[in-house]
Amino acid sequence: MKNEDALRRLKNIEGHVRGVERMVAEGAYCIDVIRQIQAVEAALDKVSALILEGHLHSCLITAVRGDDPDERERVLTEITDVFKAATRA
Amino acid sequence: MKNEDALRRLKNIEGHVRGVERMVAEGAYCIDVIRQIQAVEAALDKVSALILEGHLHSCLITAVRGDDPDERERVLTEITDVFKAATRA
Amino acid sequence: MKNEDALRRLKNIEGHVRGVERMVAEGAYCIDVIRQIQAVEAALDKVSALILEGHLHSCLITAVRGDDPDERERVLTEITDVFKAATRA
Amino acid sequence: MKNEDALRRLKNIEGHVRGVERMVAEGAYCIDVIRQIQAVEAALDKVSALILEGHLHSCLITAVRGDDPDERERVLTEITDVFKAATRA
Repeated sequence: MKNEDALRRLKNIEGHVRGVERMVAEGAYCIDVIRQIQAVEAALDKVSALILEGHLHSCLITAVRGDDPDERERVLTEITDVFKAATRA
Repeated sequence: MKNEDALRRLKNIEGHVRGVERMVAEGAYCIDVIRQIQAVEAALDKVSALILEGHLHSCLITAVRGDDPDERERVLTEITDVFKAATRA
Repeated sequence: MKNEDALRRLKNIEGHVRGVERMVAEGAYCIDVIRQIQAVEAALDKVSALILEGHLHSCLITAVRGDDPDERERVLTEITDVFKAATRA
Repeated sequence: MKNEDALRRLKNIEGHVRGVERMVAEGAYCIDVIRQIQAVEAALDKVSALILEGHLHSCLITAVRGDDPDERERVLTEITDVFKAATRA
């Protein structure tokens, strides 16, 4: 269900990127293009947050409750890693 | 010329987004999807920087050397605005 | 132990901020000031990542293994929230 | 004048960082600490935007109207560079 939402948003984002290509091809004003790119990035951040939310409620719960300490460690480290990649850490 | 580069990069980004859609549709691992989204965002940031660079070397120079103080002010404010939008300011 | 590390880093960051104040008071070049502010932010992001890592390995594990579904939900939602706040989501 | 504003904000930020140190020393809840760090970063981004705004209205105008193409190029490149550092470009 969540995936349907993520997929639908990604399809919209793909259309948004095509719109930015058109703007560049038609020589739109630079600042307007940059603003549209920033809007695309905000939409992508929303998809990431949505997917992370689903991940925490499924894979993470399974790993934390499971018997494999390596698997648990891997899942927890990945979450810190995507947080680091989203910042300058 | 710069625009050709921006356009080519945006077409690649569009393909990259389609790749992420495919990953989601095929049930790829959540963290791998988030990492690909972060890669798309980094590629978009590069396009923004490229377009800003071109803007500073053309529109900005024209506005700053021109006789219209309102136009100059507008162009300078826009640059601060896209910087603010790229951060939390 | 982790907290000692976070505290030590925060004290360094406080000193770094004082250094930036000195630069501004002495009329340092604007771009150099902005670069130092960006360095302070990168150092803060590292502290956040460190604290998040500790949180996932303690509070989160306790909440996910615990018997209180509301508490578990709260802890999972908070993690998505700090991720959202770190991005544009 | 602008510098007075930046300096005053930086002093507040220094106090804010000391507050975060106190939270960590007293064992405050991890997520509350991360949220305060994110607030400090937002405040720092505002100072950067303020300083950039002043820079564009002074150094940049001087450089763009001046007779030294190398100096102009340097100033324009620096602006793209701080934009890149503020993003993932």
